[in-house]
Amino acid sequence: MISRVAILGTGLLGASIGLALRKAGFSGEIVGWNRGAEQGQAAVANGSIDTLAPDIFTAAYGSQVVLLATPVYSILDLMEQLAGVLTPAQLVTDVGSTKAMITAAGNRLFNQAGRAGFLPGHPMAGKEVSGAANADAGIFPGAVWLFTTEEASADREEPAMSDHAAELAREWRGWVERFGCRMVDLNAGRHDELVAWVSHLPQFVATAFTALLEDTVGDAPELKAVGGRALREMTRLGASPYSMWRDVAYTNTEAIAASLHALEQRLAHLRENLRTPELRDEFDRANKFRKE
Amino acid sequence: MISRVAILGTGLLGASIGLALRKAGFSGEIVGWNRGAEQGQAAVANGSIDTLAPDIFTAAYGSQVVLLATPVYSILDLMEQLAGVLTPAQLVTDVGSTKAMITAAGNRLFNQAGRAGFLPGHPMAGKEVSGAANADAGIFPGAVWLFTTEEASADREEPAMSDHAAELAREWRGWVERFGCRMVDLNAGRHDELVAWVSHLPQFVATAFTALLEDTVGDAPELKAVGGRALREMTRLGASPYSMWRDVAYTNTEAIAASLHALEQRLAHLRENLRTPELRDEFDRANKFRKE
Repeated sequence: MISRVAILGTGLLGASIGLALRKAGFSGEIVGWNRGAEQGQAAVANGSIDTLAPDIFTAAYGSQVVLLATPVYSILDLMEQLAGVLTPAQLVTDVGSTKAMITAAGNRLFNQAGRAGFLPGHPMAGKEVSGAANADAGIFPGAVWLFTTEEASADREEPAMSDHAAELAREWRGWVERFGCRMVDLNAGRHDELVAWVSHLPQFVATAFTALLEDTVGDAPELKAVGGRALREMTRLGASPYSMWRDVAYTNTEAIAASLHALEQRLAHLRENLRTPELRDEFDRANKFRKE
Repeated sequence: MISRVAILGTGLLGASIGLALRKAGFSGEIVGWNRGAEQGQAAVANGSIDTLAPDIFTAAYGSQVVLLATPVYSILDLMEQLAGVLTPAQLVTDVGSTKAMITAAGNRLFNQAGRAGFLPGHPMAGKEVSGAANADAGIFPGAVWLFTTEEASADREEPAMSDHAAELAREWRGWVERFGCRMVDLNAGRHDELVAWVSHLPQFVATAFTALLEDTVGDAPELKAVGGRALREMTRLGASPYSMWRDVAYTNTEAIAASLHALEQRLAHLRENLRTPELRDEFDRANKFRKE
């Protein structure tokens, strides 16, 4: 059923999905749109998309699947703009990093009689570098692609998408599987809670650690010499773009603040126990996590 | 001049150096010693060492180079035991993670008339897994091997090693170069200060982060599904052994505590600014560090 896909937002992730579709054997049309023309042209240049549409409506019109691949607030904005003009024969899906707000908006704006379907998604794949020029289908094999059709608050009855859209959703999941991803379904609220620990906290720790290094030893000529793999890994995400993470910080503030606060306390505890047996207990706990 | 090397401590790093010597074309004898016989036998089994000596003196006797590859306090202990029995025709070198105490002990116990030479070294290479069974010559190419012959306090006049030992030190540096390492000379105090930031802080952050995850979401069945590369990287060092890091914590406590405290404050600052423009400044600083 899917013969044309519109990718709105041809940055690293959107363009990588275009490449992954082609690699997986998708022979239909891939049309892209991007707010800035430069990223759009780079996506055409490396074959991530076939053509660049002048606006979101031109891109979405005639596409069975419309993929939203921008930062979270921009996804919410695109959803508002598209909800009234798409048809029940279309499916909208997204790759936003936080899911409670997007999933709720999806059921409010889509998944209604006369409206297109909405399938909230989140591939746990990416790079610290951004832009279509860094697009890479290789980020997907082995990665997990989460779907969060269940809203955060379970007491609200959830609207369903049309049969036609449900069929498109099944077909889209088939492509995701062919990208090499494992698919997992998760409640949207639980998603945001878990990713605060395993994705957002690592990012903000890396940002804080890297910014701290820049201020304290950034100009030490010996620094680059001394640093090994630990330094490279712990600062890799320091290159991540603010433009994406601002929206994550805004849409999952409470869970991120709680995880940061817990880590601050844990670091203080470790610091106060550098010369006590409690240090061994911390290493034991960490070793246990890695063994599981 | 080097026809026999003694490796005291045939854990991951000691055994990897044995393999690296062979790979680099060393045709002499490699004798090993280890406190626990199991690691020693594993090192013989995988060719990291030729034979296992029953004690450190048997291993050291007749070896032109004696390599100390145990945790820091054990290195200091081995130095005390060996200082009186080795000759000026021998060189002792080490791979300890902190260098102020070891470098000072080296000049006090060795590098004197009638004593063997001592060359303090620290390869910035390793793995989060320990043991001779995980030994790997591939950890060295591209890594930095630091030497810290200059003591922390510059006001003390530094004793020099014998001409014979100095020649052995030059030859040993030649082997390190053939391992594929870049060699950098650094003041011992500056070394401990810098590695607190680029090596010890990453380790203790990883330990605290991983221990925290174990306590908070360690039993969440969805956790492993949700985690991606950021989680793997940020918890990799959580598998590191306490036995090695205890000595690092004890011998570089002040610098590590200072770096931990600075990071705690930085995380609190970021947490308080998740929704302010200051978040952008933190990302900008981190981005700058990565671009340099």
